Amino acid sequence: MRLSAYFLPLLRENPSEAQIVSHRLMLRAGMIRQSSAGIYSWLPLGLRALKQVEQIVREEQDASGALEVLMPTIQPAELWQESGRYDDYGKEMLRITDRHERAMLYGPTNEEQITDIFRHSIKSYRDLPKNFYHIQWKFRDEVRPRFGVMRGREFLMKDAYSFDIDKRSAVTAYFKMFVAYMKTFKRMGLKPIPVRAETGPIGGDLSHEFHVQADTGESELYFDSDVVLLDENRIDPASLTVQDDIAGWYAATDEKHDPAEFETRVPEARRRHARGIEVGQIFYFGTKYSKPMGAVVVGPGDEPIPVEMGSYGIGVSRLVGAIIEAGHDDAGIIWPESVAPFRLGLVNLRAGDARCIAAADELYAKLCAAGIETLYDDRDESPGAKFAAMDLIGLPYQLVVGPRGIDKGVVELKERGTGKRQELSPEAALNRLGAK
Amino acid sequence: MRLSAYFLPLLRENPSEAQIVSHRLMLRAGMIRQSSAGIYSWLPLGLRALKQVEQIVREEQDASGALEVLMPTIQPAELWQESGRYDDYGKEMLRITDRHERAMLYGPTNEEQITDIFRHSIKSYRDLPKNFYHIQWKFRDEVRPRFGVMRGREFLMKDAYSFDIDKRSAVTAYFKMFVAYMKTFKRMGLKPIPVRAETGPIGGDLSHEFHVQADTGESELYFDSDVVLLDENRIDPASLTVQDDIAGWYAATDEKHDPAEFETRVPEARRRHARGIEVGQIFYFGTKYSKPMGAVVVGPGDEPIPVEMGSYGIGVSRLVGAIIEAGHDDAGIIWPESVAPFRLGLVNLRAGDARCIAAADELYAKLCAAGIETLYDDRDESPGAKFAAMDLIGLPYQLVVGPRGIDKGVVELKERGTGKRQELSPEAALNRLGAK
Repeated sequence: MRLSAYFLPLLRENPSEAQIVSHRLMLRAGMIRQSSAGIYSWLPLGLRALKQVEQIVREEQDASGALEVLMPTIQPAELWQESGRYDDYGKEMLRITDRHERAMLYGPTNEEQITDIFRHSIKSYRDLPKNFYHIQWKFRDEVRPRFGVMRGREFLMKDAYSFDIDKRSAVTAYFKMFVAYMKTFKRMGLKPIPVRAETGPIGGDLSHEFHVQADTGESELYFDSDVVLLDENRIDPASLTVQDDIAGWYAATDEKHDPAEFETRVPEARRRHARGIEVGQIFYFGTKYSKPMGAVVVGPGDEPIPVEMGSYGIGVSRLVGAIIEAGHDDAGIIWPESVAPFRLGLVNLRAGDARCIAAADELYAKLCAAGIETLYDDRDESPGAKFAAMDLIGLPYQLVVGPRGIDKGVVELKERGTGKRQELSPEAALNRLGAK
Repeated sequence: MRLSAYFLPLLRENPSEAQIVSHRLMLRAGMIRQSSAGIYSWLPLGLRALKQVEQIVREEQDASGALEVLMPTIQPAELWQESGRYDDYGKEMLRITDRHERAMLYGPTNEEQITDIFRHSIKSYRDLPKNFYHIQWKFRDEVRPRFGVMRGREFLMKDAYSFDIDKRSAVTAYFKMFVAYMKTFKRMGLKPIPVRAETGPIGGDLSHEFHVQADTGESELYFDSDVVLLDENRIDPASLTVQDDIAGWYAATDEKHDPAEFETRVPEARRRHARGIEVGQIFYFGTKYSKPMGAVVVGPGDEPIPVEMGSYGIGVSRLVGAIIEAGHDDAGIIWPESVAPFRLGLVNLRAGDARCIAAADELYAKLCAAGIETLYDDRDESPGAKFAAMDLIGLPYQLVVGPRGIDKGVVELKERGTGKRQELSPEAALNRLGAK
């Protein structure tokens, strides 16, 4: 993509409304623009990052065996009256009356709706287990939306719902999703900390939150520093029960924190008390929805069995902010390659120079032909402004074409993460980027 | 995907609420499920088709040079008060009051919101032309939602918005989008009929609708049958003006129909009066939004210039229905390959037979390895039920493995569209499907 034809409204100044670094950088890098409090438009660069994150989430859900569906944003109030949550949910639920005076709402989550789909179509234990997920916009009418996409009102969430014939199988589904979550976050370059958590308004017996450590996080965590050693590839979901401590290491939110247990189980040197950004939460809640809503299947002995359920959320739009919180420096964002909006920034240092244009155009054509996502800064700006822009938007690689390099037959390749620079022939640079 | 692990809730009976064939077939094929009036959940098979359609729309928008953004579903009322459309829009607009008593709405379209983004970031004629699109759920609170996804309340729309420095350039942008629309619909196997149309609540001087001919369509069209000869590759957008009749052939909606002109210009044998399903509409409306909302750039002589705009919609979710209206028979859907939810249905005729299982499993593994999207019917059902299911869901190819074929060393390959069947060796069948 040529930057001259792109839309990248960079801000020079730090926007005063942004209190945390990811919000500041997303605004400055032209990724988002606020529409109203807690509601954002995703501009081209931001949308590319959001889609990268979304696609990793989707791939790991598919790999776990979950089936993708798409439920609508607007739900009928009756479903929530059936489950008993309509009155409980409070003002965070955006309630709507349609033209025929029917009570509707903008879904903050979808337990009721997926249970409704399930009960109409699945009648036999033979069709279990099932796990459905969707990636859809949700709305929670926060009193004080803040921190940009981290605590917005309209946000993109992946939510999955598992249906099983018994508790044994439901807990296996729960831990399968646990493993999928660890893989998902690690693919994004994050170091997830899974902690025992309260179940809150979703309900149930068992819950874990997944956190990214950050001083700006809204959650308080207590954990054994060795929890980062947890290897999800060594977890066998079928072998675990509700009582098991999956990690083998102590890790809890402040609501679940037990100081006595913490001190007993964790050597002092490994005790951590830190803040975290919650990027996912999983729940096992048994028959909380299936019983009142009649999601019942016929069992092997023809007996009616209310299904055992769990639900599993990932904050897809929030993750974009969390990834930036975890990866940035004073100059701007540092994207992990897996979620970078483009892999490479190609910079022509002198937009008026015919030799530079020819060399940069040729590289651009070769990069495009090789399928390397490239943002090509072909604008008539100073080198300083171009370098600053590239560092700010944080693409993993920068490839710089300038008049002095051309004299020497070289271009400069910079790694954004390490700051490492290297002069190479254009051919060698393409090689390094895997374009040959 | 193994059907035994999939979710495909087929209906045997025609649902009584469905008045048109696409609605009936989408329900029977387990593609959608109604959540409330005019609001649907997309089940796995339906979502796959929706995504195929969405991706073709996206690719052609990208190819036209439009930039993808994503605006939120919930908009502040103030923007619509600025443009003057807040009061005009009537009851079709879903109006919402948030917890702080602010007036919000669920966007039925996004002219105001994109103009707001534009005016805050683009200040110079040098940054023009620009065309932004997004693919997002919209809500229009229809009095009588009907025909399934054809006239739903919550629907997926691609809407694009062009910004130009003058009328000449804006009209070029309009016709570029015209060309992109023709390509988009043709890639989906449709025969689009572009007709002159009224601009309605969007406003402006110039509009075309794109229709798919169908007896169940809600629009009345008058056109020269030769309009189907229109080749978008021969259109030069820069050469056309508002006055030009792009097609060269008469084609108009009933509102724009001029019987005298029709009779003068079109020989009687080529005069058509038919019904159509509108799948897209494009508008050129000049400064209707840029003037009241102050979307002004500085021109070459430093003078302020309100930008010239157009907007361009495609009904993405409606297209799924329109494609089915255009492609089906008594047995079910007939998907064009470009939008089929899977390319192939693999049928094991005898789920209890070890040889059949081995042969079908082996084919399935090879098809997956070759990247051919395959739905594998491994269920324990009668051959009749399996054939009926495959015809109903309408995948382009069916590959049937049965005991008699195995004796002869052959499988049967059926083309859903033509009904043509052929016995082939498994190797030859894979070859035919491009899996070798």
